[in-house]
Amino acid sequence: MRYLKITVAYDGAAFCGWQWQPTVRTVQGELERAWREITGETVRVTAAGRTDSGVHAAGQVVGVETSAAIVPHKLVLALNYALPEDVVVRAVEPAPEGFHATRDAKRKRYRYLLLNDPRRPLLLRNYVWHVPTPLDAAAMHRCAQELVGTHDFASFQSVGSERESTVRTIDRLTVARGGMSASEPGDPDGQVSPGLFSPEADALVTIDVRGDGFLYNMVRAIAGTLVVIGRGRRGEGWLTEVLAARDRCAAGQTAPPQGLSLVEVDY
Amino acid sequence: MRYLKITVAYDGAAFCGWQWQPTVRTVQGELERAWREITGETVRVTAAGRTDSGVHAAGQVVGVETSAAIVPHKLVLALNYALPEDVVVRAVEPAPEGFHATRDAKRKRYRYLLLNDPRRPLLLRNYVWHVPTPLDAAAMHRCAQELVGTHDFASFQSVGSERESTVRTIDRLTVARGGMSASEPGDPDGQVSPGLFSPEADALVTIDVRGDGFLYNMVRAIAGTLVVIGRGRRGEGWLTEVLAARDRCAAGQTAPPQGLSLVEVDY
Repeated sequence: MRYLKITVAYDGAAFCGWQWQPTVRTVQGELERAWREITGETVRVTAAGRTDSGVHAAGQVVGVETSAAIVPHKLVLALNYALPEDVVVRAVEPAPEGFHATRDAKRKRYRYLLLNDPRRPLLLRNYVWHVPTPLDAAAMHRCAQELVGTHDFASFQSVGSERESTVRTIDRLTVARGGMSASEPGDPDGQVSPGLFSPEADALVTIDVRGDGFLYNMVRAIAGTLVVIGRGRRGEGWLTEVLAARDRCAAGQTAPPQGLSLVEVDY
Repeated sequence: MRYLKITVAYDGAAFCGWQWQPTVRTVQGELERAWREITGETVRVTAAGRTDSGVHAAGQVVGVETSAAIVPHKLVLALNYALPEDVVVRAVEPAPEGFHATRDAKRKRYRYLLLNDPRRPLLLRNYVWHVPTPLDAAAMHRCAQELVGTHDFASFQSVGSERESTVRTIDRLTVARGGMSASEPGDPDGQVSPGLFSPEADALVTIDVRGDGFLYNMVRAIAGTLVVIGRGRRGEGWLTEVLAARDRCAAGQTAPPQGLSLVEVDY
């Protein structure tokens, strides 16, 4: 058997999330179907992050264990040919013996995009959370630093998928208005770079978070909570209190899925 | 009766074009339905350009003759509430007596976007023509100047909608790679500004054309013809020959609809 690491980007708008389900359209389902079409082999692939319905990926990592003898670069072409237009394979590489995309992920980076403009988004509607009232991105960034480090993130976990421990480490969390370079390193396809279809580049507020692991809906809960600060309703010290509460009700709302993208995974 | 000028942006991906048709989803159909919902009045609206299936608009202008007594800024809110998320009303203004959006348009500006990158587009797939092989944008721009001025554009008109005269005036035609300011004047919502979801800003090639009127599929025929030059298959002097031929077969292919946007209309 060979192990492969496949880097995949997708537009989550028309998917019921990553994970295979019998009756609906999922990214895993499409990949496994494409794999079967090309190799004749029925596999169960693994993914670094099981993104929810409506969530996107610029650099999702997928693991496959296969006996097919196709060279990686030909698999890129063949898979892209067999996949629908809202999933793109960016790279196929050999992976170490026993590679498992979920278990072996060391660090993941997510990005959450806010469109802070009184006007309704049009082409961006499936890729941002539209916040029409003014946000103070500098305050969001400053306060967000209270979440950096190793903490119990129980206040940022939605019910439905209880993990054994709710302690995680965030090693970087930035909030920035407007411009970020389209060719920023680690952004394989620049998928959600500002400048895009936006009214003005300055209307975009980007939350970028990197950590060793994330609880269920954790990034969306962080985004929703940071927006409370951006609106001026809470300030410095609040996030420290929210962490200490270990209570989902202490934090802000879960931000909607379409603003979220899985950008990069390190192994 | 009052006359109103409505500026509308839309994502053409899920529309069978502008023009009302009995059984399919069109932008005109949605606007007339929304108008009926708000005012109770059945109207037939006019548009500056009847965009085809898959073509977008950042600044389509729509004319309405109405007896409804709603103030313009309230109409913006009400229409946006009643419209689906892929059509957005940007402005409603009073128009002169007898205003007709098609007949009274003095000048229109269209933009055609090419994605010049070997990699398949993902989030941009409905907004660009994907040209994987290298394009010489400077040569396209230089040769494009042969089309500027008043000419018989019969070679750039698709069959199906013969107009009386095929003479039109193009007063500006530019081809540029990469960056154009997102807040460029006359681009009300920056709808198709580069930087977007693109692999790299430099992968985008923008064709911007302004003229007093356009024949059926004329901008798409110009785009397809300029791509022949961009690929190095034709050079200086060719477009002058193509114009002189007055034969659709002399020019290049009709570029696909999704790269095209109606950006601005002057009255």
